Amino acid sequence: MGEFQLLARLRERLPPPGHRVRVGSGDDAAVTVPGGATATSVDALVDGIHFRRETATLSQIGRKALATALSDLAAMGAEPGEAYVVVGVPPDLDEDGCLELFDGIAALARETGTTLAGGDVSRGPVLSLAVTVVGHADAPERLVTRAGAEPGDALVLTGEIGAAGAGLLLLERPELAATASPETAERLRLRQLDPTPRLTAGQALAAAGARAMIDLSDGLGGDAKHLARASAAGIRIEAEALPLAPGVAEIAAAADRGRLELAVSGGEDYELLAALAPEHLEAAMHSVAAAGECKLTRVGEVTGGAGVEIRLPGGGTVAPAGFDQLG
Amino acid sequence: MGEFQLLARLRERLPPPGHRVRVGSGDDAAVTVPGGATATSVDALVDGIHFRRETATLSQIGRKALATALSDLAAMGAEPGEAYVVVGVPPDLDEDGCLELFDGIAALARETGTTLAGGDVSRGPVLSLAVTVVGHADAPERLVTRAGAEPGDALVLTGEIGAAGAGLLLLERPELAATASPETAERLRLRQLDPTPRLTAGQALAAAGARAMIDLSDGLGGDAKHLARASAAGIRIEAEALPLAPGVAEIAAAADRGRLELAVSGGEDYELLAALAPEHLEAAMHSVAAAGECKLTRVGEVTGGAGVEIRLPGGGTVAPAGFDQLG
Repeated sequence: MGEFQLLARLRERLPPPGHRVRVGSGDDAAVTVPGGATATSVDALVDGIHFRRETATLSQIGRKALATALSDLAAMGAEPGEAYVVVGVPPDLDEDGCLELFDGIAALARETGTTLAGGDVSRGPVLSLAVTVVGHADAPERLVTRAGAEPGDALVLTGEIGAAGAGLLLLERPELAATASPETAERLRLRQLDPTPRLTAGQALAAAGARAMIDLSDGLGGDAKHLARASAAGIRIEAEALPLAPGVAEIAAAADRGRLELAVSGGEDYELLAALAPEHLEAAMHSVAAAGECKLTRVGEVTGGAGVEIRLPGGGTVAPAGFDQLG
Repeated sequence: MGEFQLLARLRERLPPPGHRVRVGSGDDAAVTVPGGATATSVDALVDGIHFRRETATLSQIGRKALATALSDLAAMGAEPGEAYVVVGVPPDLDEDGCLELFDGIAALARETGTTLAGGDVSRGPVLSLAVTVVGHADAPERLVTRAGAEPGDALVLTGEIGAAGAGLLLLERPELAATASPETAERLRLRQLDPTPRLTAGQALAAAGARAMIDLSDGLGGDAKHLARASAAGIRIEAEALPLAPGVAEIAAAADRGRLELAVSGGEDYELLAALAPEHLEAAMHSVAAAGECKLTRVGEVTGGAGVEIRLPGGGTVAPAGFDQLG
């Protein structure tokens, strides 16, 4: 398989370019007319580390690579624009396999209005992907960083957490599935294999005045810590308020882990955690609900302290280092 | 070595961000205020395919990864802006090795005015890099694609060719060096290991009215073909006019290869090939010379035909398929 030939076949399958793209894939560089500000992020995924070809289809692997990159744009409140994809192709992946991988990327690009505007294909010892995504906003101050949360701000979370962690447990230990319904188990596995970047919710939160935002890739505990540090503030999370996905409690119990611990330390939920002034909370709830992608839950607040503490249902708090005490 | 800790150490070494960058490395995404148009390109390099750790220092590998990506921006006539770097770190590369690699990237970033605005580090089986670069222009029509060359246009080439191919021969077969002076041999090796993206010349050519442009990564023959195809035109190259780098003839002879064949089919010179209307030729020569980076040579013309032909010194022409007939 020649590189040029494969690239030509891939280009044939590209969805039509978005309105910002003047020259797409195939020249020395893509040419775009950006918004007043751009948000750019890059994510790498390597077989055996970020995914395993034994438990995910090639289409799912491609789709997830784009999804995790787009999740960073969601966390900025940016409108998705272009993606640039580098694939390292191992000896055991043939041209049809490359096309299947690519179809997964292209499908999510189509669904999210993202233009695949360029890329590079190289041989490599294992399957690897590096995805660069560019999002747009009218002006830089419309984009929401991790810094900017202020004491007294409400802390909100999109969707449900714990699902991706439970899904990973199910992929690694299929026997755990017996404790949940087949539908629930499948939904949890898909949250791990096929995460949804919260692009609409992220833009709605930015428009509603979110002062700081981050997507949950490492897990709520770790990512809340990133947000707290960047904002030079503290974060208090109410364990009782956390929206756990259905089935998480059952899978956690079957795996002999605490359900809260799994939800707080399990990564890859790709939900958004945001801080906003309490007076904007109602409007934010309303606009995220109106976007129809997921619900928004108030899960805590920003404090004048430092670091992250989690208030337990029975009273008392634990620091992230004490997650294993969570029930 | 923790990923976060390495990233923190890398961030400490970053040159200060350029004026377009509002939020640099460390948040979910970098935030920039782009020009009226952007050119974006991505390049992948994998150990054993695009470089070999036996013949290049880590600093050279990093530097070349950024250089080859920036070369695509040069070929658009774009002003370099931001770079985003993904590194796959193999088990035998320690934290100091990563920093050396990174220092090579950072040094070229500083020299070219490029901001390292983000990236990702992952474990991997072999050293690999994926570099995304974003360049800027006032408007999309100021950027020069591969399409647009017209019959009668002058074909011009920056700098000298054959050097990177000869340098690769010297790295692979050190005994060939005996046929050139040590200084010449070292210069040829460095053209392979440490190419210079022709950023200033590219912008000068764009400003002088270049209608089509490409950088020589695959070799003059192959890249001229890309330009001809994209422009739906033919290209005639005068072999006698080609600016061969000093030492190329000697190394080619020692390796029992034709000097023209090595110059035309050897890749990675990263010179620019451009087409412009004859009435703009003098101004282009002047402005590239004034930029002081390299000279500009007229090497042929755009024709109404198709494909690429090379006119030999003794008369007659060969197609790229006939490169082995070149002297």
